Amino acid sequence: MQLGVIGLGRMGQIVVDRVLAAGHDVVAFDLDDEAVAAAAEAGADPADSIDDLCEQLEGTKRIWLMVPAGAAVDATLEELEPHLEADDIVVDGGNSKFQDSVRRAESCPAAYLDCGTSGGPAGAELGFSLMVGGPEAAYAELEPIFDAVATGPDGHGHMGPAGSGHYVKMVHNGVEYALMQAYGEGFELLHEGRYDLDLENVSRVWNNGAVIRSWLLELCEEAFREEGTDLGDVADRVEGGSTGTWTVQEGLEQEVPVPLIYTALAERFGSRADEGRFSRRLASRLRYGFGRHEVPREE
Amino acid sequence: MQLGVIGLGRMGQIVVDRVLAAGHDVVAFDLDDEAVAAAAEAGADPADSIDDLCEQLEGTKRIWLMVPAGAAVDATLEELEPHLEADDIVVDGGNSKFQDSVRRAESCPAAYLDCGTSGGPAGAELGFSLMVGGPEAAYAELEPIFDAVATGPDGHGHMGPAGSGHYVKMVHNGVEYALMQAYGEGFELLHEGRYDLDLENVSRVWNNGAVIRSWLLELCEEAFREEGTDLGDVADRVEGGSTGTWTVQEGLEQEVPVPLIYTALAERFGSRADEGRFSRRLASRLRYGFGRHEVPREE
Amino acid sequence: MQLGVIGLGRMGQIVVDRVLAAGHDVVAFDLDDEAVAAAAEAGADPADSIDDLCEQLEGTKRIWLMVPAGAAVDATLEELEPHLEADDIVVDGGNSKFQDSVRRAESCPAAYLDCGTSGGPAGAELGFSLMVGGPEAAYAELEPIFDAVATGPDGHGHMGPAGSGHYVKMVHNGVEYALMQAYGEGFELLHEGRYDLDLENVSRVWNNGAVIRSWLLELCEEAFREEGTDLGDVADRVEGGSTGTWTVQEGLEQEVPVPLIYTALAERFGSRADEGRFSRRLASRLRYGFGRHEVPREE
Amino acid sequence: MQLGVIGLGRMGQIVVDRVLAAGHDVVAFDLDDEAVAAAAEAGADPADSIDDLCEQLEGTKRIWLMVPAGAAVDATLEELEPHLEADDIVVDGGNSKFQDSVRRAESCPAAYLDCGTSGGPAGAELGFSLMVGGPEAAYAELEPIFDAVATGPDGHGHMGPAGSGHYVKMVHNGVEYALMQAYGEGFELLHEGRYDLDLENVSRVWNNGAVIRSWLLELCEEAFREEGTDLGDVADRVEGGSTGTWTVQEGLEQEVPVPLIYTALAERFGSRADEGRFSRRLASRLRYGFGRHEVPREE
Repeated sequence: MQLGVIGLGRMGQIVVDRVLAAGHDVVAFDLDDEAVAAAAEAGADPADSIDDLCEQLEGTKRIWLMVPAGAAVDATLEELEPHLEADDIVVDGGNSKFQDSVRRAESCPAAYLDCGTSGGPAGAELGFSLMVGGPEAAYAELEPIFDAVATGPDGHGHMGPAGSGHYVKMVHNGVEYALMQAYGEGFELLHEGRYDLDLENVSRVWNNGAVIRSWLLELCEEAFREEGTDLGDVADRVEGGSTGTWTVQEGLEQEVPVPLIYTALAERFGSRADEGRFSRRLASRLRYGFGRHEVPREE
Repeated sequence: MQLGVIGLGRMGQIVVDRVLAAGHDVVAFDLDDEAVAAAAEAGADPADSIDDLCEQLEGTKRIWLMVPAGAAVDATLEELEPHLEADDIVVDGGNSKFQDSVRRAESCPAAYLDCGTSGGPAGAELGFSLMVGGPEAAYAELEPIFDAVATGPDGHGHMGPAGSGHYVKMVHNGVEYALMQAYGEGFELLHEGRYDLDLENVSRVWNNGAVIRSWLLELCEEAFREEGTDLGDVADRVEGGSTGTWTVQEGLEQEVPVPLIYTALAERFGSRADEGRFSRRLASRLRYGFGRHEVPREE
Repeated sequence: MQLGVIGLGRMGQIVVDRVLAAGHDVVAFDLDDEAVAAAAEAGADPADSIDDLCEQLEGTKRIWLMVPAGAAVDATLEELEPHLEADDIVVDGGNSKFQDSVRRAESCPAAYLDCGTSGGPAGAELGFSLMVGGPEAAYAELEPIFDAVATGPDGHGHMGPAGSGHYVKMVHNGVEYALMQAYGEGFELLHEGRYDLDLENVSRVWNNGAVIRSWLLELCEEAFREEGTDLGDVADRVEGGSTGTWTVQEGLEQEVPVPLIYTALAERFGSRADEGRFSRRLASRLRYGFGRHEVPREE
Repeated sequence: MQLGVIGLGRMGQIVVDRVLAAGHDVVAFDLDDEAVAAAAEAGADPADSIDDLCEQLEGTKRIWLMVPAGAAVDATLEELEPHLEADDIVVDGGNSKFQDSVRRAESCPAAYLDCGTSGGPAGAELGFSLMVGGPEAAYAELEPIFDAVATGPDGHGHMGPAGSGHYVKMVHNGVEYALMQAYGEGFELLHEGRYDLDLENVSRVWNNGAVIRSWLLELCEEAFREEGTDLGDVADRVEGGSTGTWTVQEGLEQEVPVPLIYTALAERFGSRADEGRFSRRLASRLRYGFGRHEVPREE
């Protein structure tokens, strides 16, 4: 099968490599010439523009977008549009907001698949987990490609109609925030608690047979091994938050409580409050108000 | 009525003043001679020891303890014990753990009343809210004293058997933590949000007729008036926490969820984590683990 | 001063009564003829249409809308629009979303004031708390009206530009959710805990001098007096939630954590999950998965 | 090596089987004769009393307790005590409170190892995760046994001094509660949300390559496969909670916030509030108090 790939960043390059390794053909394009050259060296046919890429694709076009979520997806689709026909298939493998995917599916002349992708750079060897939304026939036609990009046939699935792939990925990420914070609470208690523990040792033992074993816990073990049991100079500041925010917003709209996901997200916000949390400053001052407790002041 | 008062700190002095103002007699003792002198100047009979205080009390003894919760209460009771008989009444007006009050009530030769006291220094003028546990007859006998120390007859009540007064006070304080944090969240959102608001103005308007008006909100208004709308140099550090901790512990034992009280307490703990929250540092490192996101480092 | 009032439900009628009582003139309209008749009986000039109301207003028009938030406000403004000039003033006293108020302020030919109103039916006697956003000159011109509708001059204030009045009211309501839930946690612990307590008694004592005294606590006292200490047949189901949802959404956009407000809102959602919480059903099944604990089943 | 095993329930039997399979000798005792007979059939030497078991152990005694946490452990230790000498080793492989283990280690005449065990019945094939506290020399001496009971050498570790094994296991379980609830929130949102999703399909795809893949997620997949995507008649009621409660209590003592673990535990409590949550009933009534919103009543 021949696949066009647009967007050759870390994740796009992995897609190219895995599709080539499975014996398919790839036409590759990126705004960055060096990324295109790297893909060519790996065995892809280089394209120097979206027009060029479309011309190199023979028969019905199958195109995988791996560009940053947001405006870049819309810009790419706009350029693709004149080349697309109803039989063609476009896959958005990025981290798009599911509402955007629903909108794009409606206006795209080709079949449009929204594909949530999880696994990160580690997917280069293992393959990704792919959650796909959109027309079932288009999904079925691309199965050989999904087999190659995913961990295999079990690593991808058709979730439902347009948007459902990115919807499931959004919720995946919300859960991810909560899992990270849950492990973090446990390790914080072990770190601050009454024993002097080697957290790499703890996580190693847990990863071998304990109920809470997981890939994230393997990453904890790796973190303690590489940074030390006190995490060295890693700062108390957690960036990111868009997919978690979307998950909580969807929970509000559906009236579904997601307090753990909310709390994990709020910890990120709190970690970025550089001048301290106003709520706590007020609480401190109120303790003076009713009890004449001394007010801690910034020096 | 004649009342012995042991413990003449800020709160004990207010008890003395209010009881005297209501026309009763007071014999006052404190380990600090100056505090005793101040009470004497206010009209109390000074005592230079607990023995002396007991000797000055005529007939059945009524004694109000206003000493720091914990060991000081036990030490005082131990000294009092040889002087006490079954008809006497001892009131613990401090912030004791209710389990301690149950234990003390069992071993005290006199009737023992545990009296939760709320209102802080502002109670000097208004009177306090008094939640009283212990034998009902003893409570009834002391009503004239409670009328004087409280805001009046409505400001005190008999809650139930031994320990119930401090139990209700413990829960009062747990709620207090949550209320402070709830107002804090609202003002934080107003402060960080999209309008440039005068928070003294906001709280003044709210305090006049709004559903959330309260004494704590009046203290917020005062805080913004005195510190400025951005709370000046008040630090993000909230001290205290014992009664809140007891409340959450009781919730665990009774299997009653108190998530707002817990969260308010956890904010205090978090405000005192001087080296940052370990859980957030781990989350930050894990984002590198699965997504190669840059790790923020301490400089 | 002459004021047109559109919308004569419970709250609108109170506005009419208070403005009349302060010696002003009112022209009143509602889609419901009986409501107009009631207003007329109270001393207002009745109008049988918005056109009629506008014609009865002399000189620059001052009009107070007290219609349900949402489409009704837009529909009323559309009808008003041909009658409005730049010198006129329209007040939206309802519970509108602040973003809607910003939009309406931009398109309204008259000066537009968004006025958050708190106090509920109890405001009939006490007056309301009014948080007003929009042009300062318009606010100043209407001060006599605000004095009448509010508890007095202290019961209203100019918050800032368009939308800020409803913004502050939105946050007020978010805090209100959290305060209610905080008191609820305390009383739940007292109710389920180890003493047999009279909760009307507890709340009465707290309302007299305790740190957590408030109007909401007075309403708790009233509730226990009227329903009994176990709240009789009041169901575990909390309706409402729009302003709380908006508050959390704004917290997400501003990256300000509001965990107490979120939790209080989530409790409402949870109370309406008629078929049980899916998350808990899954947890129950997982306990079988890893520990062979028996799974509770619906009968 | 020869090992005495006391307690032949599901977990104890697995210990016996795995130790025998590794080529060691086992002397087995349980109060239930049938359990002893089953162990004998598997190849263990049966004992008909603790005395008998001790007599059958040659040289220094190594004894593994797998009895229910609490009084049963103390009762067993009391019976063992006359037989124990300083060179002997006792392992408590149950779910004991770490404070109990510290106390027992102090009074036990033999070396005492507290061994947190995770993995549940699935450990029969895979082996367990073993977190061991107590004297390092005793741990080292028993390594062949731990190799057999655990997944292998990586599945066990020496955590630190007495109590640390059960301490780490306690925190493990606290994290476990939070992870279960985190997955539960995600699946609840997917179940109640805007797509009609097959949750077995979702969890299968996630388990193959996604960041949140884990053993608990495999158990979710199994649950959806066996119960259906809506979990059939599984009830909204989560039993258990002791280790989670201990974890939160330890967080309170160490002043370490564990809001996700707390929330997960509180969900369990809430799921067992058969007459509804009092806090929500009060909130519902308060909405009438300030806004005259209709009160939902039980029929």
